[in-house]
Amino acid sequence: MNVLVTGGMGYIGSHTCIQMIQSGMTPVIFDNLYNSKSSVLDCIEKVSGTRPVFINGDIRDKSLLIKVMKEHDIENVIHFAGLKAVGESVEKPLEYYDNNVNGTLVLVDAMREANVKSLVFSSSATVYGDPASVPITEDFPTSATNPYGRSKLMVEECLTDFQKANSDWSITLLRYFNPVGSHPTGELGEDPQGIPNNLMPFVSQVAVGRREFLSVFGNDYPTPDGTGIRDYIHVMDLSDGHVAALEKVGAKHGLHIYNLGTGNGYSVLDMVKAFESASGKPVPYKVVARRAGDIAECWADPAKAVTELGWKAERTLEEMTQDTWRWQSSNPQGYPSE
Amino acid sequence: MNVLVTGGMGYIGSHTCIQMIQSGMTPVIFDNLYNSKSSVLDCIEKVSGTRPVFINGDIRDKSLLIKVMKEHDIENVIHFAGLKAVGESVEKPLEYYDNNVNGTLVLVDAMREANVKSLVFSSSATVYGDPASVPITEDFPTSATNPYGRSKLMVEECLTDFQKANSDWSITLLRYFNPVGSHPTGELGEDPQGIPNNLMPFVSQVAVGRREFLSVFGNDYPTPDGTGIRDYIHVMDLSDGHVAALEKVGAKHGLHIYNLGTGNGYSVLDMVKAFESASGKPVPYKVVARRAGDIAECWADPAKAVTELGWKAERTLEEMTQDTWRWQSSNPQGYPSE
Repeated sequence: MNVLVTGGMGYIGSHTCIQMIQSGMTPVIFDNLYNSKSSVLDCIEKVSGTRPVFINGDIRDKSLLIKVMKEHDIENVIHFAGLKAVGESVEKPLEYYDNNVNGTLVLVDAMREANVKSLVFSSSATVYGDPASVPITEDFPTSATNPYGRSKLMVEECLTDFQKANSDWSITLLRYFNPVGSHPTGELGEDPQGIPNNLMPFVSQVAVGRREFLSVFGNDYPTPDGTGIRDYIHVMDLSDGHVAALEKVGAKHGLHIYNLGTGNGYSVLDMVKAFESASGKPVPYKVVARRAGDIAECWADPAKAVTELGWKAERTLEEMTQDTWRWQSSNPQGYPSE
Repeated sequence: MNVLVTGGMGYIGSHTCIQMIQSGMTPVIFDNLYNSKSSVLDCIEKVSGTRPVFINGDIRDKSLLIKVMKEHDIENVIHFAGLKAVGESVEKPLEYYDNNVNGTLVLVDAMREANVKSLVFSSSATVYGDPASVPITEDFPTSATNPYGRSKLMVEECLTDFQKANSDWSITLLRYFNPVGSHPTGELGEDPQGIPNNLMPFVSQVAVGRREFLSVFGNDYPTPDGTGIRDYIHVMDLSDGHVAALEKVGAKHGLHIYNLGTGNGYSVLDMVKAFESASGKPVPYKVVARRAGDIAECWADPAKAVTELGWKAERTLEEMTQDTWRWQSSNPQGYPSE
């Protein structure tokens, strides 16, 4: 099965390519390297034994997409490519809507012309906005609290309307909770540019000495220790979820929506403690003001994916933190620049 | 004041160009003629005494937009261009999101490069979804019930986020209720392609003999005569509203949102009777099933526009129907094809 993987050089995309290769699929990576480095390809090859085809391209380049899909007999697309920093999206909303929303429209248009009718989209639990309760099921109402989240929600809405009008397509929306961890070999991991937006890479950069301390945004939430609770999921589990989605519903006409989460919530301080224990390093932190748009707690009900995809997140909190630390301590500056 | 008018050859755009010329503004029309005819330009000239510059272009053509804005020293943009048929949007959602949402993103990007920071956007009362009550004020929650409406809502959200990040811009969202009527000279009017989607052009085509009867979609709504109630507004009033918006807030930094409606609701049967009276022709109708997504009643609270723009819809129901009939009876097949 030949699968075009947009954004395949990124954090989740690269890990998913490895799991696809292990499952006998052939990923063809399409990435503009805006937020990733070309050396990721070497790491994928080293770990999987296979060097995927890589095309340096932008998803807004329709003719290149069509050409690549035809040349490589693409049957499915997994669409990871997109901008993903909440703070940046507030400053540069036009870029977020152009890359994420328009980029997806161009991709679907290209797929239509290349006669590829199976798409798995990288969505996010951010589309649940501030949920009324936890755990969150797929039929919860959707909303957004910032341009990044709105761009994900708009893409979901565009794809939903498109699938309704094109009933012979398979479109799958995978709503990720909070991906963390790294490949257990320590060869691949999360390598954010600049100041990390997410907790785990920030914590690991503190532990490795790149940053002085962690800022904890609020400890007065209505949670047991006052810090925000999230559903952290190991990136290897998340990657397996993509493989399961392709295998189970990639050829099934319809709109398919799944939460990819563990169903467990951990607080910021839980994560800090677990990381200190995994790394043997102290992670100093300071409590600062709440961050606008943050919610108290958010975790998935993963039952639908368990039942329909036969997929379940298996990796433990220890694996999440140990694998993160293995990557970070072996690659304190992330991937080598070319 | 040089104003780029995207979609300026369309129904509302062409009438607005005339009112702009009367007010001493210089419209520069940018239209791809997808849904309009080039002979509209002759009609604008005949009525106003001025032939505006016309560029045959698509709003997704960024370099052409930049060139035009620079060449004509554009200071403001009124953005009418867009697809507008609800039924078609269900069949072709990708085209609606591409033309309406992406088209607006390209336009704003071009404006940014041409250093034009004042935009008036053609929005719609459709963004109120199924309102909890009437009359509707601008702070009602927004939602959408079909891809057309969603595309308008997405544009509003993109522009709102963009203005928040670019506080030196003036962005005005004008939410139209139900535009009807024609220029009182009978030289310009609504000229839908194919089967009209809206009530008035359908009624007038029945009266002029182009169609056999009107289908009334449901007479069991909780309204006095059972048919849906809407806020019909004369296109000349709507056009004046655009001029008022440009004059009052076009140079005022911020996000400005106004309902453009009369504050009066008329039922389908009210409109049929008024039209029969204006035209002296019978308008046979048949009651058929409700149309999915239609709501019982919808009318504006226009107070904000009255207070802040000094604008008020003045034309009566008689003028709406008489002007429609004058246009339709003098031009039974609409504008001449070129």
